[in-house]
Amino acid sequence: MLGLMQEWPLVCHKIIDFAARQHPHREVVSRSIEGPITRTTYAGIHANSKKIAQLLTREGYKPGDRIATLAWNTGRHLEAWFGIMGMGGVYHTLNPRLFPEQIAWIMNHATDRAIFTDLTFMPLVEKLAPAVESLRKVIVMTDAAHMPETALTNVVAYEEWLKEADGDFEWADVGEDAACGMCYTSGTTGDPKGVLYSHRSNVLHAMMACMPDAMGIGAKDVILPVVPMFHANAWGLGQSSPMIGAKMVMPGGKMDGQSIYELLDTEKVTFTAAVPTVWLMLLQYLELTGNKLPYLNKVVIGGAACPRAITEKFEKDYGVEVIHAWGMTEMSPLGSLCTMKPEYADRTGDALLDIKQKQGPAPFGVEMKITDDDDNELPWDGKTFGRLKVRGPAVASSYYGGDGADHFDSHGWFDTGDVAHIDEFGYMQITDRSKDVIKSGGEWISSIDLENLAVGHPDVAEAAVIGLPHDKWGERPLLVIVAKEGCSPSRDGVLGFMDGKVAKWWMPDDVAFVDEIPHTATGKIKKTALREQFAHYRFPG
Amino acid sequence: MLGLMQEWPLVCHKIIDFAARQHPHREVVSRSIEGPITRTTYAGIHANSKKIAQLLTREGYKPGDRIATLAWNTGRHLEAWFGIMGMGGVYHTLNPRLFPEQIAWIMNHATDRAIFTDLTFMPLVEKLAPAVESLRKVIVMTDAAHMPETALTNVVAYEEWLKEADGDFEWADVGEDAACGMCYTSGTTGDPKGVLYSHRSNVLHAMMACMPDAMGIGAKDVILPVVPMFHANAWGLGQSSPMIGAKMVMPGGKMDGQSIYELLDTEKVTFTAAVPTVWLMLLQYLELTGNKLPYLNKVVIGGAACPRAITEKFEKDYGVEVIHAWGMTEMSPLGSLCTMKPEYADRTGDALLDIKQKQGPAPFGVEMKITDDDDNELPWDGKTFGRLKVRGPAVASSYYGGDGADHFDSHGWFDTGDVAHIDEFGYMQITDRSKDVIKSGGEWISSIDLENLAVGHPDVAEAAVIGLPHDKWGERPLLVIVAKEGCSPSRDGVLGFMDGKVAKWWMPDDVAFVDEIPHTATGKIKKTALREQFAHYRFPG
Repeated sequence: MLGLMQEWPLVCHKIIDFAARQHPHREVVSRSIEGPITRTTYAGIHANSKKIAQLLTREGYKPGDRIATLAWNTGRHLEAWFGIMGMGGVYHTLNPRLFPEQIAWIMNHATDRAIFTDLTFMPLVEKLAPAVESLRKVIVMTDAAHMPETALTNVVAYEEWLKEADGDFEWADVGEDAACGMCYTSGTTGDPKGVLYSHRSNVLHAMMACMPDAMGIGAKDVILPVVPMFHANAWGLGQSSPMIGAKMVMPGGKMDGQSIYELLDTEKVTFTAAVPTVWLMLLQYLELTGNKLPYLNKVVIGGAACPRAITEKFEKDYGVEVIHAWGMTEMSPLGSLCTMKPEYADRTGDALLDIKQKQGPAPFGVEMKITDDDDNELPWDGKTFGRLKVRGPAVASSYYGGDGADHFDSHGWFDTGDVAHIDEFGYMQITDRSKDVIKSGGEWISSIDLENLAVGHPDVAEAAVIGLPHDKWGERPLLVIVAKEGCSPSRDGVLGFMDGKVAKWWMPDDVAFVDEIPHTATGKIKKTALREQFAHYRFPG
Repeated sequence: MLGLMQEWPLVCHKIIDFAARQHPHREVVSRSIEGPITRTTYAGIHANSKKIAQLLTREGYKPGDRIATLAWNTGRHLEAWFGIMGMGGVYHTLNPRLFPEQIAWIMNHATDRAIFTDLTFMPLVEKLAPAVESLRKVIVMTDAAHMPETALTNVVAYEEWLKEADGDFEWADVGEDAACGMCYTSGTTGDPKGVLYSHRSNVLHAMMACMPDAMGIGAKDVILPVVPMFHANAWGLGQSSPMIGAKMVMPGGKMDGQSIYELLDTEKVTFTAAVPTVWLMLLQYLELTGNKLPYLNKVVIGGAACPRAITEKFEKDYGVEVIHAWGMTEMSPLGSLCTMKPEYADRTGDALLDIKQKQGPAPFGVEMKITDDDDNELPWDGKTFGRLKVRGPAVASSYYGGDGADHFDSHGWFDTGDVAHIDEFGYMQITDRSKDVIKSGGEWISSIDLENLAVGHPDVAEAAVIGLPHDKWGERPLLVIVAKEGCSPSRDGVLGFMDGKVAKWWMPDDVAFVDEIPHTATGKIKKTALREQFAHYRFPG
């Protein structure tokens, strides 16, 4: 027997309809690419997204068409998203930090038919366009006065283009399971893989994100998504902010400490989110200038493990609550947020920081388990670590085109590729990537734990640990170190520093000193390259 | 093109699975029907609900079967809900405050096949059982020691029954659109009508309810649902509390001031919800005893318009935030919650109380409009009032058996039967029931506004305004008054008191004094009876 409740599909245009109806005057402030701070409202975003949907439809784009965006976080980018989704299209965010060849590969794989871009990226788009046969139109998000000269054909200035529409358009009648967004993961190995979000997954993810023990955001918040819209949907903030009617502040292309501080201060931002690197820059700027953060309540930090020092500075020096989060492009992206359950609610000081090193519990809508290599579930004891697998309405079921099918099992679990332990209260902590974990004598050693320990040595600038073949144990850890400028730490000095702080059998068998450790475009250590570099290395007998 | 996200149906057993996994030790405390305070946890609720689902399935109950509950709020009632839903059944809450004949009528209309009940209601169930042919089993939520003698056959003591199961049961594989719950509305006219909730509507409603600008509840809250589970699902708290892992405190059958205060105090309740009458009793008790409410942060008040004096006492004398809410059984039930948007966030004192008299804005997931009798939308100006219509994923699409089809239109809007205005910031305020609004010369007069004004007169205990036929104007208002004991207000005295406080043409044409105003079982003024009583009345010429 079916319930007798309304069919009210979870489609993304209902979010912007809601914002325009219930919060029409709420501002969306942007640091524009042209320079000045610009202001619109949810009513304005709604009106322009209607125009975009109308124009795309008029020009022959169809539901399901992929429309790329290669752009910074601005109000225009946001209305482009809602316009594309509102005509039934699929916004496809491109990461400008990838090599042009990679971007072109991704665009071809996705068969992008048009692109919204910023002035910043015109030189890049001029390179990409000839390489992407499916591409029919380039919409430069600026006005006529700022349009650069270009040899490209089929280019329009956004503001002029919008003048061709009156916005009298009914949102496309797509179901909630229709695709609405797309983002490719930039793995450290293999070709990028496309994640195809649905309206339903985006709406449910936004609802999950707003909950008090997740991001805990409401209409009185002023939200600055520093995390780019091209980086896993700006962690959903492009959907969750209008869903609750919060004012948004968009940083455009400037993520340096001073620029971010200016927005935090002048716009009285209460909530922000980004990767650790951004916060390092901000904290350095604050220390230099002596400025404070009187309005900011919460900062979500994810994308990489948040160093304890950053959490400590925010909480102790600036009175800002840090929410350490974990997620993946494949998860829309939120997987866990380290807010306090009653079991930990009374902690303060270092005891609290200990917990905040964890990536935290999963909200309702994310199921988690850790398993061994044979898919046996492992206990939640805060020590035993295993492959982290997840399930949920905002988790990918497969990659676009059927790539990477081995990441998904028949019971719907997605293998995150991360290795983690989970404590008795549900707090998850990433200990490694599964391909980087070191398997010694059938047991696992966390490369990240060893790295974190090694960088605690005063002379060590950066550390990476990789597993290398070993006759007896299968694999053993090698510690690779970049010394701080002017320092020359010794092998025995570093190992002596680490001794006693981890299990004896975890201790690296050797230390290698290098000038540089290779990184990916998104700043992660490129362990594949490192393993190649040390392919012929043999442990001291 | 469909998105490539996981099929993860929004089914209610995922809520209790989540609570048992992420918050296994969180308590559910009950004032038991037997007397003592009892304690279980979400792990315990989960385990027992598995047993219930297993037993019901073993005994031949099928997905879609309606299983009644006639019970107070307790942990047992909650696990009965999850057990019934988990085997694919439909929990059907019965309101013990109705007449036995009405309850039997409802049970027969729903074809209830079993019933979970409390000791309190055994005499009632003994009356009902012979009148409900479909009823096969009575489960009395107590243990063997407390089982009363009864002539009924097929009766079991809950705790003994549970011993027959080991809980090794896979939740029924029902889709999210399957029915899972049922509640009949007790309208002031006509037969009761059945609302049939789906798993999806319950899950989405719970998510909406938890959001910061709705109830704003999280794992650190201690939640006391005084509003009964048989009264519109305890406003969803039976689903939303486990969804966020909040401790629950269940009041059992005792809702008097002292009993509620004891629970608020000893269990350190932070969040509670009920109709105004309950809070009047509590506030009287607090005044009498001088007790305070140091732990309570928020109280949600709905079910009837919340008198300003209650809001004022809670906020000023006890530091408790009042959330004035509105909803309907047909809406699962939440429709609006009067929390502050930035536009009103700076208000304090009387200016804040003015806003809190409104029922507030709709959250994401509830669409609202007001219309005239011809379905033309009316402006949101805080003055113009019209028929309040709603749409959303947790709003009924029809009544069970197709009753009351005229409440639903072809565009999915449900006519709430309420009349309201909405201000420019989306704050809705109920001004009347549409059948009680007085239509004078083509314009509407709010009976509730006039009643609220009249009870402000020092000698008036209760007031009701009804529209009666009028040759010239179609209808004109008659004010019906019950005087306070020992007082004898005059017609001219009361009208003189009201004069100048409403538009001239709103002023009642006459005043009638009565000893008693008729009420429904749920305490609302029975205007139909009043109109009958005054059917032969003629306005002074």
